Amino acid sequence: MRIDRRRLEASIEELGRIGETNKGGLTRLALSDDDRRARDRMVAWMREAGLSVRIDRMGNIFGERAGTEALPPVMMGSHIDSVPTGGKYDGQLGVLCALEAIRTLNDHEVQTRHPVMLVIFTNEEGARFQPAELASGVMAGKIALEDAYNTRDKDGIRLVDELERIGYLGPEPCVARPLRAYLELHIEQGPYLEEEGRSVGVVEGIVAISWSRVTIHGVQDHAGPTPMRTRHDALVAAAQIVTGVRRIATEIGGDLVATVGHLTVSPNITNAIPGKVALSIDVRDPLDATIDRALALVERVVHEACAREGVTSEVEHYWRVPYTRFDGAVVDAIERAARAAGARYRRIRSGAGHDAQYMAMIAPAGMIFVPSRGGRSHCEEEFTPIGDIEDGANTLLLTAAGLARGK
Amino acid sequence: MRIDRRRLEASIEELGRIGETNKGGLTRLALSDDDRRARDRMVAWMREAGLSVRIDRMGNIFGERAGTEALPPVMMGSHIDSVPTGGKYDGQLGVLCALEAIRTLNDHEVQTRHPVMLVIFTNEEGARFQPAELASGVMAGKIALEDAYNTRDKDGIRLVDELERIGYLGPEPCVARPLRAYLELHIEQGPYLEEEGRSVGVVEGIVAISWSRVTIHGVQDHAGPTPMRTRHDALVAAAQIVTGVRRIATEIGGDLVATVGHLTVSPNITNAIPGKVALSIDVRDPLDATIDRALALVERVVHEACAREGVTSEVEHYWRVPYTRFDGAVVDAIERAARAAGARYRRIRSGAGHDAQYMAMIAPAGMIFVPSRGGRSHCEEEFTPIGDIEDGANTLLLTAAGLARGK
Repeated sequence: MRIDRRRLEASIEELGRIGETNKGGLTRLALSDDDRRARDRMVAWMREAGLSVRIDRMGNIFGERAGTEALPPVMMGSHIDSVPTGGKYDGQLGVLCALEAIRTLNDHEVQTRHPVMLVIFTNEEGARFQPAELASGVMAGKIALEDAYNTRDKDGIRLVDELERIGYLGPEPCVARPLRAYLELHIEQGPYLEEEGRSVGVVEGIVAISWSRVTIHGVQDHAGPTPMRTRHDALVAAAQIVTGVRRIATEIGGDLVATVGHLTVSPNITNAIPGKVALSIDVRDPLDATIDRALALVERVVHEACAREGVTSEVEHYWRVPYTRFDGAVVDAIERAARAAGARYRRIRSGAGHDAQYMAMIAPAGMIFVPSRGGRSHCEEEFTPIGDIEDGANTLLLTAAGLARGK
Repeated sequence: MRIDRRRLEASIEELGRIGETNKGGLTRLALSDDDRRARDRMVAWMREAGLSVRIDRMGNIFGERAGTEALPPVMMGSHIDSVPTGGKYDGQLGVLCALEAIRTLNDHEVQTRHPVMLVIFTNEEGARFQPAELASGVMAGKIALEDAYNTRDKDGIRLVDELERIGYLGPEPCVARPLRAYLELHIEQGPYLEEEGRSVGVVEGIVAISWSRVTIHGVQDHAGPTPMRTRHDALVAAAQIVTGVRRIATEIGGDLVATVGHLTVSPNITNAIPGKVALSIDVRDPLDATIDRALALVERVVHEACAREGVTSEVEHYWRVPYTRFDGAVVDAIERAARAAGARYRRIRSGAGHDAQYMAMIAPAGMIFVPSRGGRSHCEEEFTPIGDIEDGANTLLLTAAGLARGK
């Protein structure tokens, strides 16, 4: 049993046109009009594939293919929101490979004991509403529904209002239910599979992630008549923090990565000394202890930079996900399926967060990676060769079919 | 002859309510609805004071008090646009003190040989449309009207369209005309007058100013799975430029100031490595040669920072104003008037650009400074004591009356 490469390719192309950028990338922010259009397209395809579709209170979309017995389903899925000027593979590919796996089960009239279910999670990226993986976080009971509803985007718009506006505020409770397994295919977003010529990564776990927010309060003043000696420039302190974060990552080394991805200046005009800067710090490592060590160094860097410039600051470590170890039996099942699919596979760890992180708290979970050209993602240049996608999709199909057949 | 302190105070308060912020500052961006309301208020007051009002093609507003002879007028004025979350004294004070001077001439039924004219210049701040002092630049023939019209704000809106929308696209050509003198009262925006307990600064000149734009192109990628070794982070390079600009200012010392006031990151989200950063560099010094030296060092810093991070950059030095030496006779007239007004004055240099810079190219020009509390401006905390304002306004009145009476 093999998936239909051409059908999958056509679906990737069609869905990728919704929110497509000039340069062939994707801007499809969570709960935007383009997200609604992509959801509508997916729901139509799910119905065509005979799935019964339901929406929950977080806007998560479920499509169920019945099993022969009333057993916990095998759930496959990912997300279809993107970062701004992101790519067509991150998230979307996992959803479409899951759909293709279900279409293939239909083609072969495979009956499974467990139902097989497709899921599309709301707001995985955290680009519009923070934090990331918001909807799977609610499902896992780690984020309160109220809090998720009241999250606002940069224009002050509440998530729940956008859910309602685009017609995806569903009636089903967003709670953990018994699952046979949760499987997610995703692009690696790193360089390792491509560097080694592999088509599939059997993911053993996801690194621990910490997100912090630093706000620096300087003294806004005129850039001309204010002598250098009397300045308290929030951006000068912020710049020392940015270079400090880079230095910490380099010094600790190993698998640690640390990034300042977001930085805003106020009032942000040429002739005013910046009075306020807000910036984000993203720190990741397989070991929670290494993250703790990095954060302590970050706090010292912030403190020293602000003291030097005579400005004040607040540091909030507002999101933390510990290391996720995927279910041993599911990982083994994925490895067997990769071998059966003829994929060139290796075991690997994920440096990016995924909904599978929260799902692993409430179900036996596992992930399948396919390569990212140049290791690149969250950019318009994202690309995975179709031959590798085919290996990944077949691995997903065989894993799901195997787990859904068994007891 | 003395100005009416209470009337002036009441006008400052009333005009300051248009665009007032929660914290008592001012956000009145050029050609915004609040700018239109403030212009309407000024035009009404000018007509009440018996002035004949005209608008030119750059939206500059002129109000003329006739002289007894057909001679070149003495022009007084400033601007009423502000930076975002700026203060109520920058610009507005000069316009209102000029109006108060004219009201006082009316009170005393003073007849002058030269007409006395009030001017309000469009878009002095350069906060919404760049560069700063745009309309006086056009009047001085240094900026083409076409170029000024086509300048766009950050939302892509053209200046000329906004002029038309708010009803201030006038019929008069915006060109240099013979003037007896141009006088501008303004807050110092620096700490010197307050530190020395002076109420008035007799301004001898304005420092040279250079504005540059640096654009850094890195490689946008995912902040998680991208190892530190493969990163090309535009913000890390930008941060080294920000600290480098500060270091250059400190090392050169003297009167040099250098500021990165504007910095934007793209895509500016927590979990993406910044692919692009744009930033501004503002450099000022009384000596043009010192600015040249600083810019050469800035270019080296940009080059080294970008080479280190493996990113590319463009540097544009897009605006430059040389040192402005005010007219000796006008400066002397201001000094005599300050003495006659009983002001505690000193000679001083301006670190900020003003419309007087361009006006000095086409007319004998001079400026009067009043103190800024804590040296602060371009912020909501801007403040000048009313006693000092009174000294400044009387100095302006006596200077204008003296120059308008003479041959």
